[in-house]
Amino acid sequence: MLTIVIIGTGNLAEHLCRVFSSVDSIAIVQIYGRNTETLKRFSGYGTTTTDSAKIKDADIYLVAVSDNSIPSVSQLLSEKSGIIAHTSGAIEMDAIGLDNCGVFYPLQTFTKGKLLDFTSIPICVESKQNSALDTLKKLGSLISENVYEINSDKRKRLHLAAVFANNFTNHLYSISEKICQEEGLSFALLQPLIQETAEKVLSISPREAQTGPARRGDKKTIESHLNLLKDKKQTELYTLLSEAIKTMYEEEL
Amino acid sequence: MLTIVIIGTGNLAEHLCRVFSSVDSIAIVQIYGRNTETLKRFSGYGTTTTDSAKIKDADIYLVAVSDNSIPSVSQLLSEKSGIIAHTSGAIEMDAIGLDNCGVFYPLQTFTKGKLLDFTSIPICVESKQNSALDTLKKLGSLISENVYEINSDKRKRLHLAAVFANNFTNHLYSISEKICQEEGLSFALLQPLIQETAEKVLSISPREAQTGPARRGDKKTIESHLNLLKDKKQTELYTLLSEAIKTMYEEEL
Repeated sequence: MLTIVIIGTGNLAEHLCRVFSSVDSIAIVQIYGRNTETLKRFSGYGTTTTDSAKIKDADIYLVAVSDNSIPSVSQLLSEKSGIIAHTSGAIEMDAIGLDNCGVFYPLQTFTKGKLLDFTSIPICVESKQNSALDTLKKLGSLISENVYEINSDKRKRLHLAAVFANNFTNHLYSISEKICQEEGLSFALLQPLIQETAEKVLSISPREAQTGPARRGDKKTIESHLNLLKDKKQTELYTLLSEAIKTMYEEEL
Repeated sequence: MLTIVIIGTGNLAEHLCRVFSSVDSIAIVQIYGRNTETLKRFSGYGTTTTDSAKIKDADIYLVAVSDNSIPSVSQLLSEKSGIIAHTSGAIEMDAIGLDNCGVFYPLQTFTKGKLLDFTSIPICVESKQNSALDTLKKLGSLISENVYEINSDKRKRLHLAAVFANNFTNHLYSISEKICQEEGLSFALLQPLIQETAEKVLSISPREAQTGPARRGDKKTIESHLNLLKDKKQTELYTLLSEAIKTMYEEEL
């Protein structure tokens, strides 16, 4: 049995509570948070406390708080002998400032209230101590088929790649939505295209899957699109993305 | 029964042949192309010809050729009385240069050899004549549940939105892939994130779904990411996309 204390009451904390509570060999012994109201949402998963002095003993403390709070919150656990692992992609493990530190980073975007199947979510683990690493790997493997040992440096770069694939991609969706709305067109028209674009790269490298005016060097369409755009940032993005596509494939020559 | 001649032997022509041949009330009477070798791939769908003088009569001629070739190829059909419809998102209907012109634009990205379910693909139709419009709508509804009458001006803007949602998004996937490869990390690590990012906007507006360092105004992470990037275009894109996200949400204030 692995015993766990969840530190934090955000979105990821809730997703982790949900998936851990579905596994027999994991026991959530406590959830710690500062806000009594927010903690109420977690009462179904285990005992809760707002008092850091009353945090129980456990094998693993998962620090699922905002990046900036990781160092200070970790210090609340300085007397604990269990593994103190944060769950962030961007923050190095040493930010925890304790010997028994670790990382347990699920590489996924978590939406409030949207159920996720953890089985395929990559879990990136890290620790200085072999035994702690084994424990974090074990925890990961109880919820996912994809557990990887990835150090802080590589994880940061993976997180950077994730920003392109998730945050920036989502912003392009937003621009598409805006262009549709301005024309009184439903964004739903683009949904099958968005889904297929994402699905395509499951079987083909995105480098090979690239299509469109910039890839074809179709200056006429590019010019016509630029004439349609009125928003300055959209125009800049269209130009830069088209140039970047052109550059990527010129490198092939 | 609707009779159809397919003009062109590209990727879209092949996808259209495949879906039309699965519908009892559609007859592909012929496929026209210039290249004998390429035409061979189409022989299972109907008779083929490389001789424009031998193009048969049909209710609809679907001109599925490259954008630039639409005007010249359409002229091969100037004596025909059926509907001459192109299949492009970017080109106005009048490029056909014939009275019996129309548009039949399936809004999707078509990959060679990858089967697609047409049922959900939006089909955008346009024509000057009501009867031709009805015929194109009928053809659309035989393969898709989503047939829309959209004029050339709106279609161009929809195509622009599609370039953001598909071509540019795919380029961001390429950058992610490149960052992973440079670190010896498998791009497969990002697949669940890419799929979930796309799936998320089925239920939440991308504007609301936006997360990440730029959305949070997390300058520390942005700076750390910029330090990791060595490629000039990637750095420019990271900066511009972060600024664009910032700007989009500042407008809310």
